[in-house]
Amino acid sequence: MEIGPLAIAMGDPAGIGPEIVAKSWMAREQHALPPFFAIGDRRAIEMVWNGPVEVIASPDEAALCFARALPLIQIEDTAAIVPGTPDLAGARCALDSLELAVGLARSPMVGGLVTAPVAKAQLYAIGFAHPGQTEFVAERCGVAAANTVMMLAGPTLRTVPITTHVPLREVADLVTVDLIVAKARATERGLVRNFGIERPRLALAGFNPHAGEQGAIGRDEIEVLQPAIEILRAEGIDIIGPLAADTMFHARARAQYDCALCLYHDQALIPLKTLHFDEGVNMTLGLPIVRTAPDHGTAFAIAGKDKANPGAMVAAIALAAEAARNRSVYA
Amino acid sequence: MEIGPLAIAMGDPAGIGPEIVAKSWMAREQHALPPFFAIGDRRAIEMVWNGPVEVIASPDEAALCFARALPLIQIEDTAAIVPGTPDLAGARCALDSLELAVGLARSPMVGGLVTAPVAKAQLYAIGFAHPGQTEFVAERCGVAAANTVMMLAGPTLRTVPITTHVPLREVADLVTVDLIVAKARATERGLVRNFGIERPRLALAGFNPHAGEQGAIGRDEIEVLQPAIEILRAEGIDIIGPLAADTMFHARARAQYDCALCLYHDQALIPLKTLHFDEGVNMTLGLPIVRTAPDHGTAFAIAGKDKANPGAMVAAIALAAEAARNRSVYA
Repeated sequence: MEIGPLAIAMGDPAGIGPEIVAKSWMAREQHALPPFFAIGDRRAIEMVWNGPVEVIASPDEAALCFARALPLIQIEDTAAIVPGTPDLAGARCALDSLELAVGLARSPMVGGLVTAPVAKAQLYAIGFAHPGQTEFVAERCGVAAANTVMMLAGPTLRTVPITTHVPLREVADLVTVDLIVAKARATERGLVRNFGIERPRLALAGFNPHAGEQGAIGRDEIEVLQPAIEILRAEGIDIIGPLAADTMFHARARAQYDCALCLYHDQALIPLKTLHFDEGVNMTLGLPIVRTAPDHGTAFAIAGKDKANPGAMVAAIALAAEAARNRSVYA
Repeated sequence: MEIGPLAIAMGDPAGIGPEIVAKSWMAREQHALPPFFAIGDRRAIEMVWNGPVEVIASPDEAALCFARALPLIQIEDTAAIVPGTPDLAGARCALDSLELAVGLARSPMVGGLVTAPVAKAQLYAIGFAHPGQTEFVAERCGVAAANTVMMLAGPTLRTVPITTHVPLREVADLVTVDLIVAKARATERGLVRNFGIERPRLALAGFNPHAGEQGAIGRDEIEVLQPAIEILRAEGIDIIGPLAADTMFHARARAQYDCALCLYHDQALIPLKTLHFDEGVNMTLGLPIVRTAPDHGTAFAIAGKDKANPGAMVAAIALAAEAARNRSVYA
C-alpha cells in the first residue's frame, strides 16, 4: 500500500533542525527516503542552505515536487532567525509547526510525523505546558502520556526506558510490577504494528549489579522484576530476564531479543548512544499515528555552521516510513 | 628493562581457566605475549588440551622453555577434576594456586600476576573469607582493599566503578565527596604507573539523567560530584564532568579522556562490555604489584568443550606485561 508523505515539524528555527531537514532531502536518493515535507519558516532553511525549496499548500503536493525540491508548508515566523540564537518568536514558530504537523499526521493523507528538536526552555517561556513534544503529540492524539512508550532505536539495538527523566535515587521506588507490565505490553504491541515483528522477543534488564545474584545484591529482581515477567509470560508475551545489564548489549547478546526494557534512563541510553550515537531515533509507541524524532537536541552551538550530522534525522525519516508501511499491514 | 615472566593463577580447575591459559600460550606469537607460566594442577590442562606442558620449579625456568611448552608450577590437587563440575578440592587447588602466585608476584623475578576465574561459592565453602580474589591479593600485599581501585580496560575504553557490588538503591548514599576524591587520586596514579600516561585525563560520569540538568533532575551532581571535582582540580588533577553518562561513551566522546570514573557497577560495565565483551580486562590499581584478570567468570557451562574464547585472557596477559614495563620506568 502506498503511504502518504511524511510531515516534518522543523523544530526551533535557530537550531540545527532546518539544516538536517535540508540535508536529509539531499540524501533522499542515497537512503531511498520516501517523499516528505517540512513544516516551518522557509527563511530558516534558506539561511543555512542554498538548495531548492518549494512552498506547497497541502501534503498531496509533496510527492509531485519531491524529486526536484524540498516541499515546505510555510509557517509565518516573526523571529529574526539567527542560527544559534533562539528567541521567543522562534519558539512560537516551532510550536505552530508542531501543531499543524500533528493535525496533518492524523489525516490519512500523511504517513507519519517526524519532529526536529525544540528548545524546551523557550517553549516553557511562551506558556507551553507539556514536558516535551511527545506529551503534546499524545494529548493532541487523545492519548494519556502515561500510556505512551519512548523507544530508542538504532541499527542494531532497540531500548525502552521504563522510567525517564527522574533522579536515579527515586527510580527504585518508581519501578513497580504494574509499570513494567504496562510498558512491556505497549512495547510488544508497538513492535508488531510499527516493525512488523509478529512475535516480539523482549528482554528485561536487571536493576542491580549482576541482576542481583539471586538476592545477594538487592531484592528488586525477586520482588518486582520476576513477578512482572511471570504476569507477562502468562499473557503469552515472549520475555526473558531479568538479565545482568552489563552483559546484555554486546552483539551476540543483542541477537536474543527485539527490544530491551530498561529500568532507568541511562541503562537504556548508555548502550544505545555508545553504539549508535549519530543515528539514534526516538519513536513514540502507543499513539494512533507514527511519530519519530532524531535522538538529539537543537545543538545551538553548531547551528548555521554547516556542521550538523543529518544521520539521526535520516534514520528518523526512514524509520517513520518503515513504520507507516508496517501499520498498513499489521494495524 | 627486561621484565620477569608473568605468573598466572589458573583459577578453578573445573572452569575455563586451564583452557584459556593453554589457548593464550598457543597465541603467544600472534599477540607477541611475553613469557608467562601457569600455577595449578597439570591434569586440569591436560584434560582439555593436547599441547606441550613443562613442569618448572621456579619462575626463572619459564623463559627457558616458553618457546616450546607452556611452563607450569604444579599444585597438587586431590580433586577429580571434571570440567564443568566444580568441587571443594578444586576450590582448594585454586586457592593454593592464588596464594603461591601472589607470593611469587611479590618477588622481583616475576613481572606481574594474572588471575583466571574462580568459583566464589566454592571458595566460601572452604572458608575463604574475602569477597573475591582482589581483596585476597590486596591483603597479601599489605594494602587495605578500600585503597585499591578496580579498573576495567578494553582497547578503546577504560572505566572505574566507584562503587561495585552493592544494590543500586544504596549507591546514592554511598557516593561521597571523599570516596570520589580517593578513587580519582588512585586512578590517576595508576594510569601514570601502569599505562605510562604522564598527565592522565579523567572524566566523571553524572549520576542522574543528563547529569541532573543543573539540579532539575536530581541534586547529586551539585552537592557531591561538583565539589569532588573542585577538590581534585585544586590538586592539579585533570578531570572533566560531571558528564551526561549516555553521551560520554561513543567514539568521539571517549577521545576526550583516558579513564571514565563511574558511580555504580553497570554505569562502568555496560559501556565496557557493550564495546569490548570478549577482551575486557580487570586491573587492580593501588597494589605494589601488577595484577590483571580477564573480566569474565568460570563459565562452567562451556568448560571442557573447547568453546572458550581466550581473548580476555590474552588481553589480561598483554596488559600485565605493558604495566610491568611501564612500572619499570614510571614507578
